[in-house]
Amino acid sequence: MPKRIFCFGAGTAEGGEDIRDLLGGKGAGLAEMSKLGLPVPPGFTITSDVCDAYLDNGRELPEGLKTEVQAAMGEIERIVGSGFGDAENPLMVSVRSGARVSMPGMMDTILNLGLNDETAAGLAKRTGDDRFAFDSYRRFIQMYGDVVLGVGHHHFEDLLERHKDAHGLTLDTELGAANWRDMVAAYKKLVAARADAAFPEFPLDQLWGAIGAVFGSWTNARAQTFRKLNDIPESWGTAVTVQAMVYGNMGDDCATGVAFTRDPSTGVKEVYGEYLINAQGEDVVAGLRTPRFLTKAARERGGSDEAAMEEAMPSAFTELCDAVDRLESHFCDMQDVEFTVQKGKFYLLQTRAGKRTAGAAVRIATDMASENLITRAAAVQRIEPDSLDQMLHPGLDPEAPRTPIAHGLPASPGAVSGIVVLDSFLAEERAAHGESVILVRAETSPDDIHGMHAARGILTTRGGMTSHAAVVARGMGWPCVAGAKEIRIDLGNRCFTTRSEKVAEGDTITLDGATGDVFEGEVPTIEPDLSESFLLLLSWADEFRRMRVFANADTAADARTARILGAEGIGLCRTEHMFLSAKRIIAVRAMVLAADNASRNAALAEILPMQRDDFVELFRVMAGLPVTIRLLDPPLHEFLPRRTEDLREIANATGEDFQALQDRAVRLRESNPMLGHRGCRLGITFPEIYEMQARAVFEAAVQVGREAGNSPRPEIMVPLVSAGREFLAVKQRIDAVGTAVARKSGVDFDYRVGTMIELPRAALRAGDIARHASFFSFGTNDLTQTTFGISRDDASIFLDSYLRQGVLMANPFVHLDRSGVGELISLACERGRAARPDLLLGICGEHGGDPRSIHFCERQGLDYISCSPYRVPIARLAAAHAALEAGSRH
Amino acid sequence: MPKRIFCFGAGTAEGGEDIRDLLGGKGAGLAEMSKLGLPVPPGFTITSDVCDAYLDNGRELPEGLKTEVQAAMGEIERIVGSGFGDAENPLMVSVRSGARVSMPGMMDTILNLGLNDETAAGLAKRTGDDRFAFDSYRRFIQMYGDVVLGVGHHHFEDLLERHKDAHGLTLDTELGAANWRDMVAAYKKLVAARADAAFPEFPLDQLWGAIGAVFGSWTNARAQTFRKLNDIPESWGTAVTVQAMVYGNMGDDCATGVAFTRDPSTGVKEVYGEYLINAQGEDVVAGLRTPRFLTKAARERGGSDEAAMEEAMPSAFTELCDAVDRLESHFCDMQDVEFTVQKGKFYLLQTRAGKRTAGAAVRIATDMASENLITRAAAVQRIEPDSLDQMLHPGLDPEAPRTPIAHGLPASPGAVSGIVVLDSFLAEERAAHGESVILVRAETSPDDIHGMHAARGILTTRGGMTSHAAVVARGMGWPCVAGAKEIRIDLGNRCFTTRSEKVAEGDTITLDGATGDVFEGEVPTIEPDLSESFLLLLSWADEFRRMRVFANADTAADARTARILGAEGIGLCRTEHMFLSAKRIIAVRAMVLAADNASRNAALAEILPMQRDDFVELFRVMAGLPVTIRLLDPPLHEFLPRRTEDLREIANATGEDFQALQDRAVRLRESNPMLGHRGCRLGITFPEIYEMQARAVFEAAVQVGREAGNSPRPEIMVPLVSAGREFLAVKQRIDAVGTAVARKSGVDFDYRVGTMIELPRAALRAGDIARHASFFSFGTNDLTQTTFGISRDDASIFLDSYLRQGVLMANPFVHLDRSGVGELISLACERGRAARPDLLLGICGEHGGDPRSIHFCERQGLDYISCSPYRVPIARLAAAHAALEAGSRH
Repeated sequence: MPKRIFCFGAGTAEGGEDIRDLLGGKGAGLAEMSKLGLPVPPGFTITSDVCDAYLDNGRELPEGLKTEVQAAMGEIERIVGSGFGDAENPLMVSVRSGARVSMPGMMDTILNLGLNDETAAGLAKRTGDDRFAFDSYRRFIQMYGDVVLGVGHHHFEDLLERHKDAHGLTLDTELGAANWRDMVAAYKKLVAARADAAFPEFPLDQLWGAIGAVFGSWTNARAQTFRKLNDIPESWGTAVTVQAMVYGNMGDDCATGVAFTRDPSTGVKEVYGEYLINAQGEDVVAGLRTPRFLTKAARERGGSDEAAMEEAMPSAFTELCDAVDRLESHFCDMQDVEFTVQKGKFYLLQTRAGKRTAGAAVRIATDMASENLITRAAAVQRIEPDSLDQMLHPGLDPEAPRTPIAHGLPASPGAVSGIVVLDSFLAEERAAHGESVILVRAETSPDDIHGMHAARGILTTRGGMTSHAAVVARGMGWPCVAGAKEIRIDLGNRCFTTRSEKVAEGDTITLDGATGDVFEGEVPTIEPDLSESFLLLLSWADEFRRMRVFANADTAADARTARILGAEGIGLCRTEHMFLSAKRIIAVRAMVLAADNASRNAALAEILPMQRDDFVELFRVMAGLPVTIRLLDPPLHEFLPRRTEDLREIANATGEDFQALQDRAVRLRESNPMLGHRGCRLGITFPEIYEMQARAVFEAAVQVGREAGNSPRPEIMVPLVSAGREFLAVKQRIDAVGTAVARKSGVDFDYRVGTMIELPRAALRAGDIARHASFFSFGTNDLTQTTFGISRDDASIFLDSYLRQGVLMANPFVHLDRSGVGELISLACERGRAARPDLLLGICGEHGGDPRSIHFCERQGLDYISCSPYRVPIARLAAAHAALEAGSRH
Repeated sequence: MPKRIFCFGAGTAEGGEDIRDLLGGKGAGLAEMSKLGLPVPPGFTITSDVCDAYLDNGRELPEGLKTEVQAAMGEIERIVGSGFGDAENPLMVSVRSGARVSMPGMMDTILNLGLNDETAAGLAKRTGDDRFAFDSYRRFIQMYGDVVLGVGHHHFEDLLERHKDAHGLTLDTELGAANWRDMVAAYKKLVAARADAAFPEFPLDQLWGAIGAVFGSWTNARAQTFRKLNDIPESWGTAVTVQAMVYGNMGDDCATGVAFTRDPSTGVKEVYGEYLINAQGEDVVAGLRTPRFLTKAARERGGSDEAAMEEAMPSAFTELCDAVDRLESHFCDMQDVEFTVQKGKFYLLQTRAGKRTAGAAVRIATDMASENLITRAAAVQRIEPDSLDQMLHPGLDPEAPRTPIAHGLPASPGAVSGIVVLDSFLAEERAAHGESVILVRAETSPDDIHGMHAARGILTTRGGMTSHAAVVARGMGWPCVAGAKEIRIDLGNRCFTTRSEKVAEGDTITLDGATGDVFEGEVPTIEPDLSESFLLLLSWADEFRRMRVFANADTAADARTARILGAEGIGLCRTEHMFLSAKRIIAVRAMVLAADNASRNAALAEILPMQRDDFVELFRVMAGLPVTIRLLDPPLHEFLPRRTEDLREIANATGEDFQALQDRAVRLRESNPMLGHRGCRLGITFPEIYEMQARAVFEAAVQVGREAGNSPRPEIMVPLVSAGREFLAVKQRIDAVGTAVARKSGVDFDYRVGTMIELPRAALRAGDIARHASFFSFGTNDLTQTTFGISRDDASIFLDSYLRQGVLMANPFVHLDRSGVGELISLACERGRAARPDLLLGICGEHGGDPRSIHFCERQGLDYISCSPYRVPIARLAAAHAALEAGSRH
């Protein structure tokens, strides 16, 4: 039988980081710390395999485990020198969950286990602190009652509130030993009345119940939501760690806190964190009291006058600093540790890779590589490409006027405007209607995950930089302002008040997560300033990646942004966007509604110089880099006016009969425009449209080629092709225009004609098509639509059901469907290359900016990926990851 | 160098039927007849390879050919005993086209070639018939001028009309030798004035020009149209046959005619045809004079008193009868021959497989098999499956009142109503607007092909059973009444008149092609009575085919028709059609617009008994045969009312707020409903709908199982599946309902759950799906739509362009696209069978009734094909063809 229990403590440990899958992050971290000789209270970890067994076996712990647990408890007793259930010198333990990746706050924890009437009395006697003993005891009953016996948290809170009211007390700190003793009695009565089972007095029974409940909490609703959001498999399970308790709340020589080896917001290398004197660990995390700074420097920067740990507990602080240094060197990563100081003695309770903002992550990775702690490849691989998104978020325009209404902690960077929403359900609902939502809460809890996910910014009135709201918001990449104390939430009137203002739910506010400021209304934002380490990291990524990264850019402005962000070309320029500008829409509409070729040609002649100017600008910006121009794609009726007066304007402009125009407009309507008269079908039926576009491209190339040293590299892309002959028919006309322009201008220019592969038939007939096409660009949006037979515009209703019910594992419009759409792409690559070995292959659907899909593209050997300008850095990094992974597999 | 010229005549021939591809049908037939010792004027055929060379080589005949032609001409001179260009005893020849399949009237012919001023005089002298000689000469100048020199036919007609007017003559027969001599002079002047080149006096020059022109006529517009309509490759080319002239117009001991070995309308075995005394062959075919019957019996049946050939020329008639008997035995098929009697001597000029109505074809094939002339397999293979369509066309309801307005020859069977249209262009235009058009013409010519194709019925005022109109209409399967003499067409006033009526263009009339009657207005039709030979042939087909043939039938009435026509089950019962009946649409709409599950369930409870009754009826009709029921497929909004008052009715019926209903109706709208919230997506999001349908199916099965000996075999089909998990989710709910119904009723019933494969992803993931599905039915309509990314509803505009420009070779909604959609089907079959060897495979898209597509299905090894009831016989026959072909390939 595989080993199920792994002990740690007293400078040794069984197992460690190498079996993290079995021990969970917490268990593995404790084992490593113990082996490093760091001060860790002794304990043991029950593996996640036992979790599987427990869940599979109708929530029964496996046979024989009890004996093993008892033996392991004996080991703790031996090290600590106290006895579990011993009335004289009782041992208390914590029982905690620990999955192989961190799921903060998602599963259950029980502290102070081992207390009963007898041991509580013993604890009081031994510590000489009745208040501490009974406070601990009532905390235990409450946690145990809630987690194991199913008596909701709020019942206990109610009782406590009533007790306070009866005694005229407000704060927990005002309650004395007698109060807590009363509460213990009241809690036990509550449990007896409400619980399914009696409260177990016998410590081993307590332990047994707690282990099962913590394993079981793997499957609670919020943990499931968290896993779905974070793509964590249900099958992993959690380990359970049982560990001797140490107390940060036994007096003013006690403390508890969290520390990061580097600043998780900026990445700067300095011990960073918070602590509370005379408190238990959950007091810091839950954000109920606003904690103090660790270092004097931080305290001064923060303008606080409450002593930093460095000042209040210099010796423990030194131990902390030594410990975190050793941990970072050991793990080669920034660590987030929990510590407790009990009666002046320093203990580490947890270490893990610290969560950090994307900016901090990049800074830390590049710094560590510069410090030779990790390789450049490791630095590149350490950054989740999607996380760069938040660094690319806009900040507030410094020039823009603004009215601050509140200030809090800068808990997660970025600026965002949105409507105030006061609960998570409404946040989800309003966000579903496409609104940008700012969730405003006193504090958040794991129950708010769905609302936080739906929101675009988080504002809390309580809690610190490591509060739930702050941690989760950073993870999600949302701006967050935490602990804005002057805000009072009034749920009854659905509003909040600041010192001077009243803000109703639904009103717009703006958060600046980088400063902690809250502003009235919408404050304009500007593009982010890219940090040095960001640029450094991406330059390293560029060294590792194989695929080129292009941008989807329709205008010269987009193209400029794309180049700043590192695009090496334009992979998709949608010419239809150029058709929609106010000054040319009338000509476009006249073209669409033309009664015959003559009037269509007249309208096209008007459009030609405008299109040419667009391309001239684009070619100038791209200075010789490839520019892939897709010919007109959408059905013509998309350009038609919705309003009668606009149609009348066209009638006036063209001198055409209004009724005739209206009739033609009606005839252009389609029942399924996505599958209608669009793409190269327009090129076949109205060849003069594509001819005009090709002419505009070529004439622009001639013009820019004359004025610049870098000759433009137009690549003309034909959309919606389904057959080789179809592509050829369009290409022949383009080539004819190319020849004509070259002859007339006397300038020889280089261009290629290729196609989108965005229909299943195009993928299947890729061999035929590649005989004539120079390049393929996978249009995975349409390819996904047609392969699944799903219109993205209509899909939201049922796709949500599909994802919720697990019928689909991911939204195929977000992550490329490898097993369906992906097979068509593979086929197309294979057949296209067989027909034309130098065929250029790329992707320009939105999947081109999705890291998971980019990995797939690397495996297919695509030559380039193209995505929206703001995703170019993400794509560069993801392409590097994919190349490194592919390399490591060779 | 391959042989380019093949001679025939005098009881021998070079080549024959075995090189029909080279000699064309006409040349091969002449060679065979000559070898059989039948009386054939001598001649030679230049191969279709020379046609290719001619067309490829800028319309120049190849080097050396002239010498070969001269040698072959010498052979003719030797046999006939006259000289080409010999003024004393001139030889005249015909120059005719002949492709490997018959293209009647599509290409050019030149007769009387060899005449010039000198030889015409010689001919006059030798025959002692000046009128004949100069009539022949002017005919030659006209044909040559038109075909070779490009002087339009009408110029010659104009001259002739003016001559007649000037001399007070009306009919050609009234013109004497002097008139024709004048015309010769006038025609030569006309040619000299209008032609690009001079009229060649030298006979060998005439011949050379004629050969080139006839080869060139392969590419004229009407021939191209004909080939497109009949799927004849452009590359085949035509052969050219040069043959000594014989004349049916040298006096009353001369005649010309056509004969069929069996009646081409009914298939009855008797010599059938027409002849004209003292006429040239084209006079019969062109329908300018109404010809006489061949046999006395036919004359009597036709109520004519003009002597039949049997009576007027008994000896030539006996020769004809002997000849056609030998030809039919030789070719093992019904023959259509052209003959000429010159001065009492009988000649055969052509033989070919005779065109026939589908009914005649079936009768002839079964008769010939019964006569042991051919095998049953050959009989089955000889019938083009699509041709059965016309036998399944409705006839006139004998009970229906009717007003006859005219009568003509019953030239092509079937009854049809439609609007009168007087020219082919308008016919095409009106038909394009979806109208049923009856093309009414004095006579038709090859220039009318496009209009005849667009029409649904043909009515002519001149011409006989073998006129152009009659032949083409039979080929197309359109009802035709020919030679309705009492009708006068008035093109100026766009109407026609009968003895008593005036019928304007656009008025509706009805034709009965089986009787030759024309009726005013629309006369109701009834289903066809199936002939004995039809049933016999299909029973033979059933012996040869491997695939089962099911019908797509939504109602018990459809199912009854399907069974009569031989369906072995229902392959597709669309349950949505059941939702649309007036009495249940309100409940359906209430269900669609339900605000919540409770009201949806209430509406479904109302629908359940009605659905159950539908299935009860269907199961009764199908008496134990498989019935494949597709669960609800279309988007829900298709059931919504278009009119506000209908929505109000639902508000009243459900007590719901009108505005709320309207809002929900608006929210149901989709931008691309084909790819929207439909099919099993409804089953995932609103499982209660499919559960109701499954319950209705199972409860009906229980009920019919109790009352009948044949237990129903429901096969529940899930539409629009794209993934295995998706199918499984739906199937599990169906199975749960099945279990519940079985438990409650105490009846064990058999059922299967399978799926449509109609999305590319379903085909790709067929392995996953087959693990749970009992059968696949290829929904090739949707599969074609999604594979091509084409909405059939929107495609007509651009698909026409695609077909016209040759970008697509066939409409993929008519003939399955083998190389795209077909590959997905192959993949799905392979992967599905690998996952489940006993997987049942079928097709239920409209391709299931298309013979070409059925061949593909056979090659994929599908188990069944399902099509609309009226196509079941076609599918049975096509499946037999496919199986025979597959067998012959093994």
